[in-house]
Amino acid sequence: MVSPARPVSDGAGPAPLRRPGRERKVTIGDVAARANVSKSAVSFVFNGRPGVGEAARERILAAARELDWRPDARARALSRSRAQALGLVIRRAPELLSNDPFFPQFVAGVESGSSDGGYALVLQVVPDRAAEKRAYERFAHESRVDGVFLTDMRLDDERVGELDRLWLPHVVVGPAAASDEPAGTIGLDDAAGVRRAVRHLSALGHRRIAHVAGVPGYVHSEVRRQAWEQELVALGLAPGPVVEGDFTGAAGARATHELLDRSDPPTAIVFANDLMAIAGMSAAADRGVRVPSDLSVVGYDDIPLAPYVQPSLTTVRQDVVEWGRACALALIATVEGREPDRVALPAAEFVVRGSTGPVPADRAPLGRPADDQPTGR
Amino acid sequence: MVSPARPVSDGAGPAPLRRPGRERKVTIGDVAARANVSKSAVSFVFNGRPGVGEAARERILAAARELDWRPDARARALSRSRAQALGLVIRRAPELLSNDPFFPQFVAGVESGSSDGGYALVLQVVPDRAAEKRAYERFAHESRVDGVFLTDMRLDDERVGELDRLWLPHVVVGPAAASDEPAGTIGLDDAAGVRRAVRHLSALGHRRIAHVAGVPGYVHSEVRRQAWEQELVALGLAPGPVVEGDFTGAAGARATHELLDRSDPPTAIVFANDLMAIAGMSAAADRGVRVPSDLSVVGYDDIPLAPYVQPSLTTVRQDVVEWGRACALALIATVEGREPDRVALPAAEFVVRGSTGPVPADRAPLGRPADDQPTGR
Repeated sequence: MVSPARPVSDGAGPAPLRRPGRERKVTIGDVAARANVSKSAVSFVFNGRPGVGEAARERILAAARELDWRPDARARALSRSRAQALGLVIRRAPELLSNDPFFPQFVAGVESGSSDGGYALVLQVVPDRAAEKRAYERFAHESRVDGVFLTDMRLDDERVGELDRLWLPHVVVGPAAASDEPAGTIGLDDAAGVRRAVRHLSALGHRRIAHVAGVPGYVHSEVRRQAWEQELVALGLAPGPVVEGDFTGAAGARATHELLDRSDPPTAIVFANDLMAIAGMSAAADRGVRVPSDLSVVGYDDIPLAPYVQPSLTTVRQDVVEWGRACALALIATVEGREPDRVALPAAEFVVRGSTGPVPADRAPLGRPADDQPTGR
Repeated sequence: MVSPARPVSDGAGPAPLRRPGRERKVTIGDVAARANVSKSAVSFVFNGRPGVGEAARERILAAARELDWRPDARARALSRSRAQALGLVIRRAPELLSNDPFFPQFVAGVESGSSDGGYALVLQVVPDRAAEKRAYERFAHESRVDGVFLTDMRLDDERVGELDRLWLPHVVVGPAAASDEPAGTIGLDDAAGVRRAVRHLSALGHRRIAHVAGVPGYVHSEVRRQAWEQELVALGLAPGPVVEGDFTGAAGARATHELLDRSDPPTAIVFANDLMAIAGMSAAADRGVRVPSDLSVVGYDDIPLAPYVQPSLTTVRQDVVEWGRACALALIATVEGREPDRVALPAAEFVVRGSTGPVPADRAPLGRPADDQPTGR
């Protein structure tokens, strides 16, 4: 993705914008001229070396941005001295981190791949988008890391462009979205596991299968929601209701109450993660709805507790440790100017346990007359 | 703790061991002489600077070890150039990391304290003790970090001495053990929470209160076990059976079966963590033992799922994020040659939920005749 050059709105710029015509590639010399500095100064800034004053550095970064110039990552990787470190910035309230089974496993996997390659892992937890941006800028300008992992991808994520402008190599960690996947994406196939879950429920006779989604706007939330919907349509079933969640237990409980309050409550719910699913089972029990005899429940993640809740949770298991490892090896290859190996990650595994069962006998025919028709959505 | 000087068992040593008498302090000059190098070379090695060959480095480290010499951490902190990074080495199988609610919260807290102080966090996950030792050596010799956090403290932990020899500042992260606590320990009071749990169960009429312990040999396992035992004795109750666990769900289930198989099964179990407690509740349900009407269960950690299991889990909550933050601030102070501020961490909170209740009426008197007498252990 190439972002358009920004017009110069600031008259205080030290030199007029001389963007070369489309026939000529922007060079480091153009940036140096625009910023009124030497080419070495531009190189120093983009290699994160000290010796360029703050004002000049700002002019250089502005000029590069305005000319839409960015250095060739491979050339840079080969030329500069390396920090021998990889960076991971996680944007999340510290208190919410322990909600997330992904994070520790991914870090462990990344770390295993990093240390094999002789790289350390530098971690930063930031509360918001502005702090995240500053973290990447600091990584780049202080040469603390040679490359970074991008997690929690959003639809239309602007960070890829930012990192390109910072000349910071990166891999995108995310589920393989069907379309417009940024280059360098290392993803597990989230969709396959969700499709398996829907087929499993359908085979048990369920016709009204709801979904409690993850935080809207995230690629993995969207991929799981779409997989649920597409598989229902493929099976000739109407997609049931969707309630937006946020991956927390509170949201899972709230969404479950909302679904069970309906005049046509679902007989099965596919949750976007285990924490919401387990809280949902608890909410159902609180209102006398038994799992799985009245309601089937499927989670996603296979957290360590999933086999130990009552009933044990049917869910989708990903090898997140291996995923993290693959991401580390790909990022190291990128940083070192090599083409990353194609990695075949193990497919998500569907784990059937006690929380899913046959549709209740008195509920099975109910949905037939109208609900079974595909909507063609 | 001062470790004894090791005798020179290796005749290939370059110079005889000339350990000065007790009246004189060992100096950097003694180490240099023993290793047959200049004082600068010793200083270079202990400051992690390059320029000393591998053979000389080994001789210098051996000489320092043999003479039991280590540089003054404060002097070093003030003199050398800093990496502006703190290190955390976690020894655990990557797959087991997501079992541990402590780790992500602690990292988030550490990171918050580190970035406030302008330090990055360098993380390493290692599978075993040898790899952990190498990680610290690499941290020290490559000057990747200015100091490290020591977690998962064991009784008689040899790492404190190792870090002293590597001249690597550190803080010890662990529960405040009553005795022989290494200097620089930042601990929460694990014991207070466990004592509260025992008093709560006693007030509910329980007399046979068992404990499922953590991995033996760890300070926090031992602190929790002792608190359980001491509080029972203080209440005039006999400490019930103890089963060793390993903090995993499988161990919690196994231990619960073992306790319930006894001829005098406990009416309450205090588990060393939530994961074992929740798996224990599931094991009890599998054999028709109802929680809390037949058996009361207490966990430790207050993981995000604790309110959402059936029944919701009574447990002990620590502010691990704040703890991590305090550890980071203390380590930064140490690294910068300042005396760490005394920090008052919030006390552990005892959270009563649905998994504890009155002792079953038919079981309450059973234990009275013999079991209620304190054993004086």
